[in-house]
Amino acid sequence: MNDLIIVIFGATGDLTSRKLLPAISRLYVEKQIPEKTKVIALGRRSYTNEEYLNVMNEAVKLSLDLKTLENLVSYFQIEITKREEYPSLVETLRGMKHENTRELYYLAIGPELFPVVAENINLSHLVTQGNMQQSIIFEKPFGHDLTSAKMTNEMLWQYFDEKQIYRIDHYLGKEMIQNIMMVRFANRIFEDSWHNRTIKNVKIIAKETDGILGRAGYYDQSGALKDMVQSHLLQMLSLIAMEVPLTYHSEDVKNEKVKVLEHLKFDKDSLIFGQYEGYHQEKNIPEDSQTETFVFLKAYVQTPRFKGVPFYLMSGKKLDQKESLIIIEFEETSEQRKWNLPLSTNKLYIKIAPLDGVGLILNSKVPGLRDDVEEVELEYCVACKAVGNLSEAYEKLLKDITEHHKTLFTRWDEIELSWKFIDAIKKHQKEPIIYKNYEDLKPLILELTGEKIS
Amino acid sequence: MNDLIIVIFGATGDLTSRKLLPAISRLYVEKQIPEKTKVIALGRRSYTNEEYLNVMNEAVKLSLDLKTLENLVSYFQIEITKREEYPSLVETLRGMKHENTRELYYLAIGPELFPVVAENINLSHLVTQGNMQQSIIFEKPFGHDLTSAKMTNEMLWQYFDEKQIYRIDHYLGKEMIQNIMMVRFANRIFEDSWHNRTIKNVKIIAKETDGILGRAGYYDQSGALKDMVQSHLLQMLSLIAMEVPLTYHSEDVKNEKVKVLEHLKFDKDSLIFGQYEGYHQEKNIPEDSQTETFVFLKAYVQTPRFKGVPFYLMSGKKLDQKESLIIIEFEETSEQRKWNLPLSTNKLYIKIAPLDGVGLILNSKVPGLRDDVEEVELEYCVACKAVGNLSEAYEKLLKDITEHHKTLFTRWDEIELSWKFIDAIKKHQKEPIIYKNYEDLKPLILELTGEKIS
Repeated sequence: MNDLIIVIFGATGDLTSRKLLPAISRLYVEKQIPEKTKVIALGRRSYTNEEYLNVMNEAVKLSLDLKTLENLVSYFQIEITKREEYPSLVETLRGMKHENTRELYYLAIGPELFPVVAENINLSHLVTQGNMQQSIIFEKPFGHDLTSAKMTNEMLWQYFDEKQIYRIDHYLGKEMIQNIMMVRFANRIFEDSWHNRTIKNVKIIAKETDGILGRAGYYDQSGALKDMVQSHLLQMLSLIAMEVPLTYHSEDVKNEKVKVLEHLKFDKDSLIFGQYEGYHQEKNIPEDSQTETFVFLKAYVQTPRFKGVPFYLMSGKKLDQKESLIIIEFEETSEQRKWNLPLSTNKLYIKIAPLDGVGLILNSKVPGLRDDVEEVELEYCVACKAVGNLSEAYEKLLKDITEHHKTLFTRWDEIELSWKFIDAIKKHQKEPIIYKNYEDLKPLILELTGEKIS
Repeated sequence: MNDLIIVIFGATGDLTSRKLLPAISRLYVEKQIPEKTKVIALGRRSYTNEEYLNVMNEAVKLSLDLKTLENLVSYFQIEITKREEYPSLVETLRGMKHENTRELYYLAIGPELFPVVAENINLSHLVTQGNMQQSIIFEKPFGHDLTSAKMTNEMLWQYFDEKQIYRIDHYLGKEMIQNIMMVRFANRIFEDSWHNRTIKNVKIIAKETDGILGRAGYYDQSGALKDMVQSHLLQMLSLIAMEVPLTYHSEDVKNEKVKVLEHLKFDKDSLIFGQYEGYHQEKNIPEDSQTETFVFLKAYVQTPRFKGVPFYLMSGKKLDQKESLIIIEFEETSEQRKWNLPLSTNKLYIKIAPLDGVGLILNSKVPGLRDDVEEVELEYCVACKAVGNLSEAYEKLLKDITEHHKTLFTRWDEIELSWKFIDAIKKHQKEPIIYKNYEDLKPLILELTGEKIS
C-alpha cells in the first residue's frame, strides 16, 4: 500500500530520463515525498524493471541514482493508445493503493496523443472525474494556436475537472521565476518603484546556443514565437507586470496574471524574425522553411501601472550564449537631467539561467580624484551560495502537485489569452521577412530599443 | 618660479609625514598638481632638506617617495610664534613665485597656536587678506565648544576672507563620503525612496579599535562626542538628510547641509556614554577622568522629509573592529505585513572604512523547495575594484584647494551649528553616567534601537 503513486505515460522518453526520474529520486532522498511512494513507468517495449532503469541510466550517461530508483520504480508494459490494455493496469494499481493514496498521472507524451490517452484514462476508470486525489499532468505545448488549444482543453474538461489538471511550464519551476514575487513584494525599494513613473522599460530575454537538436518535426511547425514567447516569455511578463494580488495564493495570482494578458498589445512595427544559418541543413527541415528561430518584439501592457512602458521580448536559438534573464530598467533621476550628470540608469537583473540570481546596476562616483559617475554592479548569485541545495524545476513542480499547490501551473485562461496574443501576431505577419543572417538583426534591434540587447 | 607653493606650518609633525607628504608626492607623480610645485616645510629645528626628509621618512617606516620629494621639498627653519622671524620667510617666498602662483598655507599645528600664527602670517604680509591666490588651511578641532570656535573664527575673519579659508574635516575627503551625493541623486531607486515614508531609520557608525594613542592631552579634554560626533558624524548626517541642493556645487550643497543642522534635535533619553577599561591607566590621563570614549545618541531631523526618522549616531574607541559606515534601513512593504511574510527589511550600506563600497540587503526567496523569504546581500567594493587607483582623502582635499573647490570643506555656519548641537547635549548631560564596561552598553543600545548595532 502506497501513499503516493506516480504513473508516467511515455516513460521511455527523454523527459523521463533527464528530468522526472532524477527529480523523483532526489525528492525521495530528501524525504519530500512519502516513504511509501511507487513510480509506475509505462512503455510499449518489454523490459524488466532492471532493464528499464539501465536503459534510462545509459540515456543520461549513468547519472541516475539507481539505488534509490530500484526500490521506487516498476516498469509496466502497455500500448497506451489501446483501451483494451488498460484494465490490467487498473487492476495492478488497485492492488497498490489505499483510499487516501495520492495519484499523479504524468503524460510525458506528444500532444497528438493527448486525446486518445485522456479518453482511455477516463473510460477505463483509471482516473475518475472530480476525484481530487487523482491529478493529471500535461507538458506544453498546449496546442499550436488558439483553436487547437481550445479543442485540447475542451477534450480535457470532458474527462477531468480543472482542479485535477496540471499544465506544466517548466520555466515556472525555476528558482528565480518563483522569486519574482518576492523581489517585487518583499522589497520596499522595488515595491515603491514598480510602475511607469519609475520603470523605463523591461527586457525579457531567453537566448539559447543550441539549434533544434533533432526536434525538426515539432520545431519547424512551431518556431520561436510559439515555442518560447507563447509560454515562457509571456509567463515572465505577466509576473512582472501584474497588479498586487489579493494574496500570494494561486488563484489570486493567476487572476492578476490573466489581467495582464488581457491588456497586452504588440507594436506592429517592432516584429523581427530571424532564422539561423544552416537551419535548412538540419535533418528533416524542408529547404524552403520559413520558420523563425529568432524572434524580437515590443509589447505594451495597457494598464494604469504600466502604460507607456515598452516590454522587449527576445528569444532565439544558436545565439552567442545560453542566458535567460529579465532586465528592469529604471528612469534617470531628476538631478541627473538637471545637473547634466551622465544619464546612466539603475537596472535590476533577474537572472534565470544558466545561473540564477539578482543583480542591480547602480551609479556611483568614479573612484579617485574625478567627480564623474560610473555604473557599478551589485550581485547576488543564488546558485553560487546554495550549492547542492538548489532544487531543479521538476522537483519543485512535482512536490507542489503532491500538495495540490497550483501557483506554478498555468490555468486555462492564461493559455487561451497567450494564444490570442500569438495568433494576432501571426495574423499580422502573414508573410514575415525572415532574416537569414543574425548579424542583420542587430542594427534593427538597436534602432527599436536604443541599445544593444543581443 | 613656481606655479604652486605649499607652505606647511608644523612640518615636522605626524600629519605631515603620514598624510601631507605622501599625498603631495602622489599628486605630483600623477601630474595632478603643476610641474613647477614647491613645498616649503617649516620647523623649529635646524635641518638640511635631506636631513628633514630622512627624519620624516623614518617616522613612517621609510614609506615616503623620497625621489619625488627631494625635488619638491625645501626645509625652512623658523620659530613660527615669533613674528620677527617671518620677514626672511617672506623674502624667500618672494623669490620663488610669479604673479599667478597659487599659494597654500597649511597650518598643521595645534589649535592653541592658530591665533598667534594667523596674526603673524597676516601682519608679516605673508598672506594678504582678499588675495584669492592665497589660501589658508586649518585642521580640526575648530574650537572645543561654541564659544571657543567663535573666538577662533572671529580671529580668522579679522585676518582673512572666508573665501581664503579652508577648514579640513578629512572624512569629507573619503571616497564614499563624496559618493553619498551620487548614491542619492544619480540612482532613481534611491531618489524616489529618500524620505520618511520609506526610510525607517539611519545609523551612522564610526568604530575604532585603537585607544587614544598617546593623545591624552587633547583627547581627555575632548572625548568622543566632541572628537567624532561634532565633526565627522554630523557631516555624514547632514549629507544623508539634506534636501536636494539647487546644484551640486559647493555653496548650494552647504546651504542645504546647514538647514539640516538647524533642524537637528537629540533625544534626551537616548544618550549613552562609555569609557573603555584601562583608560585611566593611559599615560597622562587623570585617575578620576570622566571623559567618554564611547558615545551613542538618537537624533531627529525635524524637516518634512525626515521627521520621525531616528538617526542613531555611535562612535567609540577600543571597540571590536575599525569600521565606519552608514546604514539606511527602509520600511517593510505593505505585502510583507498583509501577507504575513517575514518582516526583514531592505538596507543600504554606505561603507566608508576600512574598505569603501556600497551594499544592499534585499529579500529573496530561500533557494530550494520552501517558499520562505531570506535576506541576501548585494555588494560592491570600490576599493576592491580600483586597486592602486584610490586617492587618499588628503590627495583629493589638496587638489580641490588648488582648484578653489570648497565642497569638501566646512563652512563656518556648519561648524557653528554643530557646536550648538554638541553644547546642548553637554548642557543636558552635566554629570553623565559613564559606563566603565562596554558590555553594559549593549543592552541599553539594543533597547533604544530594537537591534544590535555594536
